[in-house]
Amino acid sequence: MSLGLVFLSEVLGTGMLTLLGCGVVANVALKGTKGYAGGFLMVTWGWGIAVFSGVFIAAKSGAHLNPAVTLGLLMHGSAEYAPGVKVDVASTLTYFAGELVGAFLGAVVCWLAYKQHFDSEEVPANKLGTFSTAPAIRSNAWNLITEIIGTFVLVEVILSFGGTPSGLGPLAVALLVVGIGVSLGGPTGYAINPARDLGPRLAHAVLPIKGKGTSDWAYAWIPVAGPLIGGALAGLFARITPDIFAAVAK
Amino acid sequence: MSLGLVFLSEVLGTGMLTLLGCGVVANVALKGTKGYAGGFLMVTWGWGIAVFSGVFIAAKSGAHLNPAVTLGLLMHGSAEYAPGVKVDVASTLTYFAGELVGAFLGAVVCWLAYKQHFDSEEVPANKLGTFSTAPAIRSNAWNLITEIIGTFVLVEVILSFGGTPSGLGPLAVALLVVGIGVSLGGPTGYAINPARDLGPRLAHAVLPIKGKGTSDWAYAWIPVAGPLIGGALAGLFARITPDIFAAVAK
Amino acid sequence: MSLGLVFLSEVLGTGMLTLLGCGVVANVALKGTKGYAGGFLMVTWGWGIAVFSGVFIAAKSGAHLNPAVTLGLLMHGSAEYAPGVKVDVASTLTYFAGELVGAFLGAVVCWLAYKQHFDSEEVPANKLGTFSTAPAIRSNAWNLITEIIGTFVLVEVILSFGGTPSGLGPLAVALLVVGIGVSLGGPTGYAINPARDLGPRLAHAVLPIKGKGTSDWAYAWIPVAGPLIGGALAGLFARITPDIFAAVAK
Amino acid sequence: MSLGLVFLSEVLGTGMLTLLGCGVVANVALKGTKGYAGGFLMVTWGWGIAVFSGVFIAAKSGAHLNPAVTLGLLMHGSAEYAPGVKVDVASTLTYFAGELVGAFLGAVVCWLAYKQHFDSEEVPANKLGTFSTAPAIRSNAWNLITEIIGTFVLVEVILSFGGTPSGLGPLAVALLVVGIGVSLGGPTGYAINPARDLGPRLAHAVLPIKGKGTSDWAYAWIPVAGPLIGGALAGLFARITPDIFAAVAK
Repeated sequence: MSLGLVFLSEVLGTGMLTLLGCGVVANVALKGTKGYAGGFLMVTWGWGIAVFSGVFIAAKSGAHLNPAVTLGLLMHGSAEYAPGVKVDVASTLTYFAGELVGAFLGAVVCWLAYKQHFDSEEVPANKLGTFSTAPAIRSNAWNLITEIIGTFVLVEVILSFGGTPSGLGPLAVALLVVGIGVSLGGPTGYAINPARDLGPRLAHAVLPIKGKGTSDWAYAWIPVAGPLIGGALAGLFARITPDIFAAVAK
Repeated sequence: MSLGLVFLSEVLGTGMLTLLGCGVVANVALKGTKGYAGGFLMVTWGWGIAVFSGVFIAAKSGAHLNPAVTLGLLMHGSAEYAPGVKVDVASTLTYFAGELVGAFLGAVVCWLAYKQHFDSEEVPANKLGTFSTAPAIRSNAWNLITEIIGTFVLVEVILSFGGTPSGLGPLAVALLVVGIGVSLGGPTGYAINPARDLGPRLAHAVLPIKGKGTSDWAYAWIPVAGPLIGGALAGLFARITPDIFAAVAK
Repeated sequence: MSLGLVFLSEVLGTGMLTLLGCGVVANVALKGTKGYAGGFLMVTWGWGIAVFSGVFIAAKSGAHLNPAVTLGLLMHGSAEYAPGVKVDVASTLTYFAGELVGAFLGAVVCWLAYKQHFDSEEVPANKLGTFSTAPAIRSNAWNLITEIIGTFVLVEVILSFGGTPSGLGPLAVALLVVGIGVSLGGPTGYAINPARDLGPRLAHAVLPIKGKGTSDWAYAWIPVAGPLIGGALAGLFARITPDIFAAVAK
Repeated sequence: MSLGLVFLSEVLGTGMLTLLGCGVVANVALKGTKGYAGGFLMVTWGWGIAVFSGVFIAAKSGAHLNPAVTLGLLMHGSAEYAPGVKVDVASTLTYFAGELVGAFLGAVVCWLAYKQHFDSEEVPANKLGTFSTAPAIRSNAWNLITEIIGTFVLVEVILSFGGTPSGLGPLAVALLVVGIGVSLGGPTGYAINPARDLGPRLAHAVLPIKGKGTSDWAYAWIPVAGPLIGGALAGLFARITPDIFAAVAK
């Protein structure tokens, strides 16, 4: 599979992810929508099914949809990112690029779908919140830790799917994302994916959104760094676990 | 499979779709029901399982249940609409007819199930809302765009199921419809299906509903045109994607 | 499989059904519980998973758990109720008896689990509501129609599972019951099962529940007759559908 | 499989269980989180997916994650706890130890993820409630009965999965736990797992949580004893059921 295909596939899949994911936040947060104030559980189902849909769309490239997953696979020592896609610098950067571009484009389409509600919403933070995450209580250290823990769980459990075939396919990932959302999304809104946060934040910065306010770049590095660290740690953890198990088994 | 069978199968399946789908809106919106004000998430689960149930009922004819899906398959260049059903003008019109008649009949049965609550509800818009969609903020252009985007997602992801067997069957479509509802249903109430909106609107127009008010025919073309455009675009998109991928792969 | 086994299996399965099903209503309706006022969607998931759990427990006898399902299979002309269980008067009565006894016992255990909350609850209708259904607007004719429609949907879709293997097993029935609940449960609380309503009502009548009030026997025949009529009609409908389809196909 | 591996596997899986499980309670109960007051249904989905994720992580050791499940298998007369793990005193104690240590560690990580919200929360009971269960109405006898019933259902249904392959794998357990939560969680908060309650309670006792108040040791024995009794009874029940069935079949 060529890297051009990987790029296109990840663009389409990650675009679906942020279209539906940002969409559910728009529905819950923007003035006058039919799902206004629909609750946190609805948001988490929206993101879960966003991942579910993106996985089908990007199945050809392994549906990473998330640089933290790509990095986790790299650190795990996987030989391939998807059938026929070798792990190397070029393919890693191709995944990163496709994920970021897709996440940006999905957020643009979400803005079009909710255009009138963005126009009538008066609070700038509600608009930005549709695109990117923000912490409940701002603290570089603790926000970073929360994102590391959430992404560690995401990548650790995804890596465990391989050894335990369940027949659930994309549903297993969807449920996992719902679970991380309801359980670990309280402090930072669970970016757990650098592209999911940075791509839409870039869209927020460049789109002509009426009365949009700041894109909060001061916080932007945390939902990038936290997930990358968490994903890398989970990949390393999964790499060394068999050795630990083997040592214990002696 | 004869076209008469296709017609009957789609009538039964789409009837189940609008019986359960309009039913959940009746439960949430009409005065005095046990699920009154049950929330948007409940509505989306109701429609998701309505599709789920309709798919089982209409499995023989491929369970389109939606002219946008039929049109998407046509534009996609599929050879058959279902095993043994060739794609041609007659079969296309048969699907359309079955879907519309079924959607009409399902709404009639829903009205019977909630008869007393239609009688005691005082706001005409709540009665119409049980049958058909209405926009949160009225605008021909933006409402159309939202319906196009929502239906594009529906048909694009459904067409991707074929290449990625997941064992989930009707559950995958159900979850997709829940996801489109929570994520893209905010501005227009996600008709994403011309029959689902027009059939029940016709039922609203002809049934002797107490104090029913207008059937809002001025809006009626949007949830027909938008889904047809979105479905057709998704079919075309899926048709040219392999060519784009092949070109990129060179 | 002996009829004694069928009886035991249905007792255990239907007992699980009303233990968990009445349980979720107790959790939502009785004073001071942790799930108090948890919403209608939570009630429907509770009943859905109650059926799910009961199906596993009573798998040996085909897990009818519901006289309307048994009657539907009888009218459908099925040769067997479960592998090795012939359809005849004795087996039909055995299913009915097991379902009713199980539903009674499950409600008794539910009362024990929520004993202190039954004691502290002051409104008698909330106590009875934990055991049996009551209409939102009382009307023999319309309440009966709603129960007929709901049970028709239940049995029609269950009978369609056979022809469309989906790999979902008990999950398909669980989702169907959630869907009937959210969509058709508004007017009467969806008994859709004579044993589920009559068994717990008998338990309510005989248990020493503090300040329990009436068992509302005037209404009791509707959630028995409605589901039996709906189930029988769905069985007949499924029986004649192939003939209609064959006639149309000519 | 060595007992060291069993221990490690259960530590990791049960750690995932309480990380996500205590996490959803923190999200709903602690001041200022994004999921604050998200509702009981959200809590039950969080615990359901917590079990789901833990089952994948601990698949190698059979993913007991719960001393009541281990004890249930012991009383059931199972020959092995997992492929290659004989049932004996040493393996039983190894499961107990791994489950308790894992549950403790998961709660510690949960505390780190929600550190700032533990700090800003003012009500000590809300902090303890994130770690351990507490009854809605305190009564040794009735609280114990509720926990026995809930755990009996858990272990009885899990033991029935073996005989009824459904292809749902970990999803079946997840749904069962959601169901027990919504249906039987009202009076005591459904510990239904001695490790899930005692491990986090120990964490609460030793962690330097700001303004944490009592760990309520007076109640601590009930969510240990109740689940052990319920699990043991369910194991015994499943053991004698075939004999009862055989006797009835004669």
